[in-house]
Amino acid sequence: MPEVEVCFSPNVYPLFHKDDAIVVVIDILRATSAITTAFYNGVAKMIPVATVEEAKKHKENGLIVAAERNGEIVEGFDLGNSPFGYMSNKVKGKTIAITTTSGTQAIEAAKKSERIVIGSFLNIDVLIDYLVSEQRPVLLLCAGWKSKFNLEDTLFAGAVAQELLRKHKYTTTCDSALAASHLYDIAKSDIYEFLSASSHRNRLHKLNLERDIKYCLTPNQCPVIPTLENGVLVKL
Amino acid sequence: MPEVEVCFSPNVYPLFHKDDAIVVVIDILRATSAITTAFYNGVAKMIPVATVEEAKKHKENGLIVAAERNGEIVEGFDLGNSPFGYMSNKVKGKTIAITTTSGTQAIEAAKKSERIVIGSFLNIDVLIDYLVSEQRPVLLLCAGWKSKFNLEDTLFAGAVAQELLRKHKYTTTCDSALAASHLYDIAKSDIYEFLSASSHRNRLHKLNLERDIKYCLTPNQCPVIPTLENGVLVKL
Repeated sequence: MPEVEVCFSPNVYPLFHKDDAIVVVIDILRATSAITTAFYNGVAKMIPVATVEEAKKHKENGLIVAAERNGEIVEGFDLGNSPFGYMSNKVKGKTIAITTTSGTQAIEAAKKSERIVIGSFLNIDVLIDYLVSEQRPVLLLCAGWKSKFNLEDTLFAGAVAQELLRKHKYTTTCDSALAASHLYDIAKSDIYEFLSASSHRNRLHKLNLERDIKYCLTPNQCPVIPTLENGVLVKL
Repeated sequence: MPEVEVCFSPNVYPLFHKDDAIVVVIDILRATSAITTAFYNGVAKMIPVATVEEAKKHKENGLIVAAERNGEIVEGFDLGNSPFGYMSNKVKGKTIAITTTSGTQAIEAAKKSERIVIGSFLNIDVLIDYLVSEQRPVLLLCAGWKSKFNLEDTLFAGAVAQELLRKHKYTTTCDSALAASHLYDIAKSDIYEFLSASSHRNRLHKLNLERDIKYCLTPNQCPVIPTLENGVLVKL
């Protein structure tokens, strides 16, 4: 049976790279939740870019551009990381360039992988169905916060890993997958409450984003899988 | 109050470096357990070296040399990673050069820190007393397995972090410290059993090292703190 592994930081991705693995990029609060929401609401394409400078160029070329740093919209840009920004009719059918503090950096780290998909609680069940249908090794890549370990990405990785391990007989020799699954077991009855002490939840709380957090932790609201094709995110 | 953080891999140490922090290097199975045992049994100095080649040079110069790779003594060397190798009268008062798969690499990663100490379950209580007496930021640096996250180092980090946070009012904004503490809470009633599914425990089980594992998980057998002074480990 295929193997599942969890990588807690894009900085150590090279230790985990496998040519045939499907890489699931995870940035729950809020980049991958926003991207999932965008495609569910009809966005056509998203171009992930690493720097604000690249994002500016896309804006000069007339694209809608999302740029977030430290939880806030960068001045002069149209959108940030809030999923609620991607629900309007204005984005339907459009191409959006996006750069975020952690999420787009994780996509960048894994870009040599054959198959990168976007994971969030919002698309967890369709994502697991897809992974199982492929029967290939799975790497759950947590974006973390500025490349450091974070709890919310780990809990999502744990939820997916334990489903693959327990229900679908995937194997693992990866202690990160075991740890993430243990943490999800403690947290799953109330993830919002479990995260109350976490660093990023507190960071966002200060920015008054409780509505975003609750939305991002509610499973299966957007059953769609964004994937990277030639450097551009599209619907799988 | 001072802050405590946990770093799961030497590869991301630069993200955590603080000039005034005390770095606790952790490689429970088995480098830091062996080093703690060695000093408790009267070894005078240990010289950590990164490569087998450097270790060979020390051997040519007449030192006792320990070299371990993938759980086994490297051919031609005197000692490996087993704590039981450091209990004999032959090592008393001696200087030993040591290179191991993960442990000495973690020391290498942190070597610009002002103060590096060696942590293991064998010296946990004296170590915590020392940290508290210093009232400086603490970074618990897990060696992991070939720089990947591992469970046994994380549990030890969790044990120390939760004592500092709960009893001694340290603060943290570090999700790794929270995660490690949660994992220790699940594991602490029987760490040996909890680790039964872990990757490195299984690796060592195949090498028939159950006695080593049980020893390394038994707290407070060697109340001594090794520390790095000018690149050489000595008793604090």
